[in-house]
Amino acid sequence: MPEKPAPRDARITAATLELLRTKGPKAVTVEAVAARAEVAKTTIYRRYHDREDMLAAALTSLTQPAPPTDRSALRPILQWLIDQSDNAIESGIGVGGLAALLTDEDPAFTELIRSLLVQHRKALADVVADPVVAHLVRDDLDVETLLDCIVGAYLAERARNGAVAPGWAERVLRTLWPAVAPTSGQHQ
Amino acid sequence: MPEKPAPRDARITAATLELLRTKGPKAVTVEAVAARAEVAKTTIYRRYHDREDMLAAALTSLTQPAPPTDRSALRPILQWLIDQSDNAIESGIGVGGLAALLTDEDPAFTELIRSLLVQHRKALADVVADPVVAHLVRDDLDVETLLDCIVGAYLAERARNGAVAPGWAERVLRTLWPAVAPTSGQHQ
Repeated sequence: MPEKPAPRDARITAATLELLRTKGPKAVTVEAVAARAEVAKTTIYRRYHDREDMLAAALTSLTQPAPPTDRSALRPILQWLIDQSDNAIESGIGVGGLAALLTDEDPAFTELIRSLLVQHRKALADVVADPVVAHLVRDDLDVETLLDCIVGAYLAERARNGAVAPGWAERVLRTLWPAVAPTSGQHQ
Repeated sequence: MPEKPAPRDARITAATLELLRTKGPKAVTVEAVAARAEVAKTTIYRRYHDREDMLAAALTSLTQPAPPTDRSALRPILQWLIDQSDNAIESGIGVGGLAALLTDEDPAFTELIRSLLVQHRKALADVVADPVVAHLVRDDLDVETLLDCIVGAYLAERARNGAVAPGWAERVLRTLWPAVAPTSGQHQ
């Protein structure tokens, strides 16, 4: 029995992300997405106002990260922050999308992605600031800089090495753990 | 009295780095560098075997980092690692060069820069491994991952924000300090 084709919404999202990651933001046009998803352009315009709207919908994982399942200890929280950062690249804008932000290759894309990243950062920072979690971390933790270190460690390894070696998340967790734990050493 | 023009070597190096940072690695050709430095192509070929040789010479700051002046405490060592990482981008390959590594835009450039970065990393790791310094840092410090966090924090902030805000080095130092210090809390 032939496999049932994916619904059109899923095909549009997959085509948008695939073009973004493989060819960069400039390649993400309504025309190109329609062709790759095998739908009519009108099908896209019935769902999305424009290209930016289509991109934003495809990148909801950035704006609505799945909350941590275990908030009882620091290790699963740090693990979750690392997974979310990894996910924002691997299932989100991709290394090509990040490179485009660095060079501001496509100003409309830059503006859209930066606004989504602000929402992503806020969602993660809110989890850390929640009283249930806050007492598990260092009092003076600078969450923005910590998240820059995590996301950046991925980018830097990819840039210098061409790939992120297995065990990346565990290495980053071991390296950053003391930077996140309370200085007294309690609650670990 | 008119200013004495910079020597040709310095002009060639400046032109190489300027083209790399503003237009990316593909723009760094012997022709383009000769035109920008206002020298003949033969002047470049008398000094450098080819384009890669010219690029490598311009990027000696990557392969021969200035050693730390103060190795008596952890703070100046971490400060030096942060400065060297900043310098490798700002006075080295630039954000555009790093973006080109991420997308492998120019494979000959990627190969050259990765080999220079290996030398850069080794020079920094050697300083940390020196017995005079080693006792100041955490026993199980993973220097590669630490340096990825530092370089990456710069890249991530630049990508999400368009610029690295003032006080970056101090913020990274405060965030990463406990990740580098001995776990016993001694020697701080």
